[in-house]
Amino acid sequence: MSFVEKVVMASEGPSFSKLIQGYWRLNDWRMSPQARLTFLKQHLELGISTVDNAAIYGNSEMLFGEALKLDPSMRDKIEIISKFGINGIASSPNEKRVSHYDSSKAAIISSTENSLRRLGVEKLDALLVHRPDFLMHADQVAAAFYELKRSGKVDHFGVSNFTPSQFSLLQSRLDKPLITNQVEINQINTHNIENGVLDQLQEYRVRPMAWSCLAGGAIFNEQSPQISRLCSCLKEVAKETGATSITQVIFAWVLKHPSKPVALIGSGKITRVHNVVAALTLKMTTEQWYRIWVASKGFPVP
Amino acid sequence: MSFVEKVVMASEGPSFSKLIQGYWRLNDWRMSPQARLTFLKQHLELGISTVDNAAIYGNSEMLFGEALKLDPSMRDKIEIISKFGINGIASSPNEKRVSHYDSSKAAIISSTENSLRRLGVEKLDALLVHRPDFLMHADQVAAAFYELKRSGKVDHFGVSNFTPSQFSLLQSRLDKPLITNQVEINQINTHNIENGVLDQLQEYRVRPMAWSCLAGGAIFNEQSPQISRLCSCLKEVAKETGATSITQVIFAWVLKHPSKPVALIGSGKITRVHNVVAALTLKMTTEQWYRIWVASKGFPVP
Amino acid sequence: MSFVEKVVMASEGPSFSKLIQGYWRLNDWRMSPQARLTFLKQHLELGISTVDNAAIYGNSEMLFGEALKLDPSMRDKIEIISKFGINGIASSPNEKRVSHYDSSKAAIISSTENSLRRLGVEKLDALLVHRPDFLMHADQVAAAFYELKRSGKVDHFGVSNFTPSQFSLLQSRLDKPLITNQVEINQINTHNIENGVLDQLQEYRVRPMAWSCLAGGAIFNEQSPQISRLCSCLKEVAKETGATSITQVIFAWVLKHPSKPVALIGSGKITRVHNVVAALTLKMTTEQWYRIWVASKGFPVP
Repeated sequence: MSFVEKVVMASEGPSFSKLIQGYWRLNDWRMSPQARLTFLKQHLELGISTVDNAAIYGNSEMLFGEALKLDPSMRDKIEIISKFGINGIASSPNEKRVSHYDSSKAAIISSTENSLRRLGVEKLDALLVHRPDFLMHADQVAAAFYELKRSGKVDHFGVSNFTPSQFSLLQSRLDKPLITNQVEINQINTHNIENGVLDQLQEYRVRPMAWSCLAGGAIFNEQSPQISRLCSCLKEVAKETGATSITQVIFAWVLKHPSKPVALIGSGKITRVHNVVAALTLKMTTEQWYRIWVASKGFPVP
Repeated sequence: MSFVEKVVMASEGPSFSKLIQGYWRLNDWRMSPQARLTFLKQHLELGISTVDNAAIYGNSEMLFGEALKLDPSMRDKIEIISKFGINGIASSPNEKRVSHYDSSKAAIISSTENSLRRLGVEKLDALLVHRPDFLMHADQVAAAFYELKRSGKVDHFGVSNFTPSQFSLLQSRLDKPLITNQVEINQINTHNIENGVLDQLQEYRVRPMAWSCLAGGAIFNEQSPQISRLCSCLKEVAKETGATSITQVIFAWVLKHPSKPVALIGSGKITRVHNVVAALTLKMTTEQWYRIWVASKGFPVP
Repeated sequence: MSFVEKVVMASEGPSFSKLIQGYWRLNDWRMSPQARLTFLKQHLELGISTVDNAAIYGNSEMLFGEALKLDPSMRDKIEIISKFGINGIASSPNEKRVSHYDSSKAAIISSTENSLRRLGVEKLDALLVHRPDFLMHADQVAAAFYELKRSGKVDHFGVSNFTPSQFSLLQSRLDKPLITNQVEINQINTHNIENGVLDQLQEYRVRPMAWSCLAGGAIFNEQSPQISRLCSCLKEVAKETGATSITQVIFAWVLKHPSKPVALIGSGKITRVHNVVAALTLKMTTEQWYRIWVASKGFPVP
């Protein structure tokens, strides 16, 4: 089993593991606190030291914090990312209010302090804006980031799901580089490869963090002409490259992008994590990468 | 009745009132010269000192000039914006020529001098490019701006309906900031909120000037599932905020955008202007703003 | 017959003729080597000194090289452009591989050396990236360009069919300006006029190189409401301007764009080349240009 290396996200850091476990569905995994700690240690043995969380992921931060408390020495061995900005509103027949975003300075600081409390840690390694907020006052976000950095509560800042103009706007107010734009990249949703999002990150030498590499399982569970084309092609490339699963081909395809993404995993089964780690050493040719792109599109490159 | 404050449009000025009366349809309002002067003075009493005109608005510049002539002391109490660039061609069965844009240096200077003559003033506070011209030679536009500034005919320059790449192109040739991009912003046409136009303006710290905040009256006069959703939601928010009309909610929604728009009014009835002024003091929450966005779209935020 | 002038493509050169012959279909023209040499000399007499080729254009580079070999003194009288980056794969029933792009350093250098060998010359005046490669490592492309420049094999570098974000990314890694973006511009495909591609080039003061000005002959050979509108309008403008063919109007329309395009010709008949040269002296008004735009769209300017 190969070891997952650490990579530098942007010119002034931080260093994150090339694969990152996402704890979005930690609650669904129904693990005991001890099982959660064991799961985390199994990742560390693989070199996967970075974990992704968010204020909006229900009580997953709290469950993660419970596990950490069983072995406080773990904190310094891992890098913790969290996110802020989505105000979920429980819907009920009489509830007129809607889920929305909030990136006011007060909301950012309060959300972050709540994340720290739930996680039981003193500092986040990185805090990301979860979704672009049409009402984002970039100066206010910058002021919140400055305050969180100054008080030692957050080391680095990034964004998620931002367009290039939103990224450029927020970056213009900061004196340090945003460290990532966490965006969807997979064979079904290739938009960010084509619309300039990844071009901008490569230009700025900032690594994307790829979410939904498996497209929510669509390739395994859904049916469409596109998915049928993709399945055949992924199997074919798996055979050619010696991959032991098409999951490896799927991740290798994302990781081959020249913007140098790190990739999120979202699985509660350590055997599946092993499966993804093997993708890091898969040798995929440029022709194979394009063959998968062509299978996704249904037409050749121009 | 609150007083409309003045705000700075860009780093080197000018100061315009946060609401601006648009004289597009002055001809349709069928006012006597004295009534036009009274109308203007009523605006000044509210703090609305900035007026918007354009060479293409038929004889509205001339009608406005007639009113000004009745009390020349008014000139220094107001800020006058005009625009150039549209060559309207009267269509007739035998007329093959089409309406088009012209941003040659000679056309800009001649259009501006004609506007000054019709308005009966010596100087415009701001001159805007009315529409992006595919044939815009940015150097020629810059040369015209330089000449108009040097000769004291125009103080500041801006654009209207420009895309980010067009704005960036023209700005690259100027030694002073463009002071605005006058663009459509309303609950039916939310494009500029989403496509990067307002992101760019916030990044450059240049205020947009919002036209068609009422979407040409569509919300009051047309029927569609979207308009039905919007009407319910706007009424609901009006009730929650204590607004006395949905027009106030509509304007407050536009003015809440973090790019800090100033808003055009296009009404010849001073009672309607009063109605809009009340929008400035409306407290709209972020949740209410997004509730209206969701009503416009018909789906929740991601 | 007027003489085609040379123009500077970008701030640090090179100078190319305002019309450029494209040798894409040289093979189809079925000329003897001597006929090819004569054809080239006829261009030089018109001032058309720049020739466009590409590694992917089958054996057209070799056929061009054969002609050059008959009179080696021709090399210094012309400017040769070639392109790299498309790996065409012959399709056969059992062939699973697909055409794809390759912009690795090794592929760029090897493709260029092959072009030089086929052309029988020691240096290209300009080398272009033929198509944007989603897997473009901009640093690798820059390293290849540096190496080709250092070894005297290529003087200048540019791109083709790039979006603004791709152009900006690659330019960020180079210490000299890209000299062009060779893109499609014609009355049927007006995208690049509207989507920011030509805005960026005008901003950077880099000339586009327009390919497919005749839209692959669609205006002459196909039928659609759009083509019908265009044909009437082009004939009308031809009459008004004294053009002797609508081809002249078509080229004059492209050349009038303020980004100052140079235009590719793709015809093996010297009489047709003469026809295009006459476009350079056609006086087209702004109104005529927009009349053609309106005919293309089927609606007036906003």
